[in-house]
Amino acid sequence: MNRITKINTPIHFAGYAAVGGYEERRGPLGEKFDFCDDEDKFGQNTWEIAEAEMGRIALNIALSKTDLSHSDIDLLVAGDLQNQCVASSGGLNSFGIPFLGIYGACSTCTESLMTLASFIDSSEKMTYGAAVTTSHNSAAERQFRTPIEYGGQRTPTAQWTSTAAGAFILKRGEGDVMLTEYMPGRIVDGSTSDGANMGGAMAFAAFDSICAYFAESGENPLDVDLIVTGDLGRVGSNILYELLAKELPGAERRHTDCGLLLYDDSKQDSHSGASGCGTSASVLACRFLPMLKSGELRRVLFLSTGALMSPSSLLQGENIYGIAPLIRLESAKGR
Amino acid sequence: MNRITKINTPIHFAGYAAVGGYEERRGPLGEKFDFCDDEDKFGQNTWEIAEAEMGRIALNIALSKTDLSHSDIDLLVAGDLQNQCVASSGGLNSFGIPFLGIYGACSTCTESLMTLASFIDSSEKMTYGAAVTTSHNSAAERQFRTPIEYGGQRTPTAQWTSTAAGAFILKRGEGDVMLTEYMPGRIVDGSTSDGANMGGAMAFAAFDSICAYFAESGENPLDVDLIVTGDLGRVGSNILYELLAKELPGAERRHTDCGLLLYDDSKQDSHSGASGCGTSASVLACRFLPMLKSGELRRVLFLSTGALMSPSSLLQGENIYGIAPLIRLESAKGR
Repeated sequence: MNRITKINTPIHFAGYAAVGGYEERRGPLGEKFDFCDDEDKFGQNTWEIAEAEMGRIALNIALSKTDLSHSDIDLLVAGDLQNQCVASSGGLNSFGIPFLGIYGACSTCTESLMTLASFIDSSEKMTYGAAVTTSHNSAAERQFRTPIEYGGQRTPTAQWTSTAAGAFILKRGEGDVMLTEYMPGRIVDGSTSDGANMGGAMAFAAFDSICAYFAESGENPLDVDLIVTGDLGRVGSNILYELLAKELPGAERRHTDCGLLLYDDSKQDSHSGASGCGTSASVLACRFLPMLKSGELRRVLFLSTGALMSPSSLLQGENIYGIAPLIRLESAKGR
Repeated sequence: MNRITKINTPIHFAGYAAVGGYEERRGPLGEKFDFCDDEDKFGQNTWEIAEAEMGRIALNIALSKTDLSHSDIDLLVAGDLQNQCVASSGGLNSFGIPFLGIYGACSTCTESLMTLASFIDSSEKMTYGAAVTTSHNSAAERQFRTPIEYGGQRTPTAQWTSTAAGAFILKRGEGDVMLTEYMPGRIVDGSTSDGANMGGAMAFAAFDSICAYFAESGENPLDVDLIVTGDLGRVGSNILYELLAKELPGAERRHTDCGLLLYDDSKQDSHSGASGCGTSASVLACRFLPMLKSGELRRVLFLSTGALMSPSSLLQGENIYGIAPLIRLESAKGR
């Protein structure tokens, strides 16, 4: 089966922004974030609405880097981790932009960019699109596990859900950083029902997508500058490293993971690294897109990784499924 | 802003199937369903897994009406109402088809078909795509409200969440029923936080999309055979009727609602009609697509309607937001 689509229409990133909270500012990328709120509240009364507001702020900052206003955006694709994705619909409703909600767990960032690119490519009516991804530590913890006030003990394989958002403006036409290819992910059984080891469950999906991409493209893994996964964290990244080193030698040397870049484990007790769909979205916006724009990176495969499960499915003994959609990003300076 | 996209590539429905439960078989469309399980369990141990199985059955029956197998499908777009959409990811993982999860509440059917059409239109690699939508009464009730065993009293404006699934195979090329246009919906404030009156909240979104469509297309509402909404039910349909009669005269005479077609209120105590994203999906598959295939209907605007909210957002006093993406379906016999 052929899975890689080369996008016919040139599509580039016209603007992007990363927004975070207290831990994100303290982390190694803190100074690269466009905006961080040390209280994680963004001026709101609940964590859930704070997440919605964070998405709004990210979209506004991304727009502020272009000459566009909300009414210029033809389609908004967004997702988050809250039940029924209410952070996206509740946070972004007031703009009046045609809206498409997606759910891909922590694969949301890549899935939203891929979907948006497909719509822009398909529809001549669409020139500008926006993609927004958010996650909030306090909203996610009390929904998926226990409220943080409970002080539950975290296991060593657990990851820290980031309070972070990434917003992206895609535009038809040539630009500094191009989105040139996409490949939807397949659902891969993570062979575990341990909700505190999602990185381990997702590693197999990332491996599946990376192998499928190079098998179909015929490219050598060393020909790309980076293969970036979303939030495998330490445990998942180690599994992926071993799998790649054995089955696709060279690819493991190009691999990095957003979940390992957001926090400094010597100072921030994140355990196995960062998770949450805001992780890959914010790290893409504040680190990799600027490096592609400057030409420091030329060709990047970007795979946000999602753990498809719910608290109910885990209680019912179901396995966690992983998915890793892939997009290819290229710098105009290095093509 | 131009919002209607005319799809460049001809895309048609190659196969479709409707699956339901006990109430759906007893309803006016019961005999048109491809398969119904009077126990609502589909051979599974939990309602949640029963919903996942229902989606699998629907996809298999839809495929059985074509000459295709799972490995021929290039992309699967699916969604449901369970938290984190686990009915879709858990039910459809084993096929190994590249997967895109969406969340549009009860607008899922239209959203999935629109998204799938965009990908097929954009990517020459994609010939066949599948879209699956499910909802299950017992899974939804215990997640959104209370377990049905609790026997909570329902208010007159409440709707009955259907146990139903619709699966659709889209194929590039000409065929009996074509998907010719799509228009993403905007998020519209339903001006209520009453989770037992979702039809009322969604009516404004349907009105917004219908008006936007005719304003942009310049077509007379009487030129289409039907304007089908998803699950406004009795309350929402009455609101929409009054709005259309006043602002877009003629359109109200073309309107019908899947939520009013699934159950017989004289025998089935559904209150304001059916809801749940399986409602519009199954009614499209078992009623409107066959009528378009035979030429009995020629031009149909189909808008599944979604209520974007979560139990948490309602408890926190937030309003319900509505969304109504639109697709245009045309019969080859009447074009």
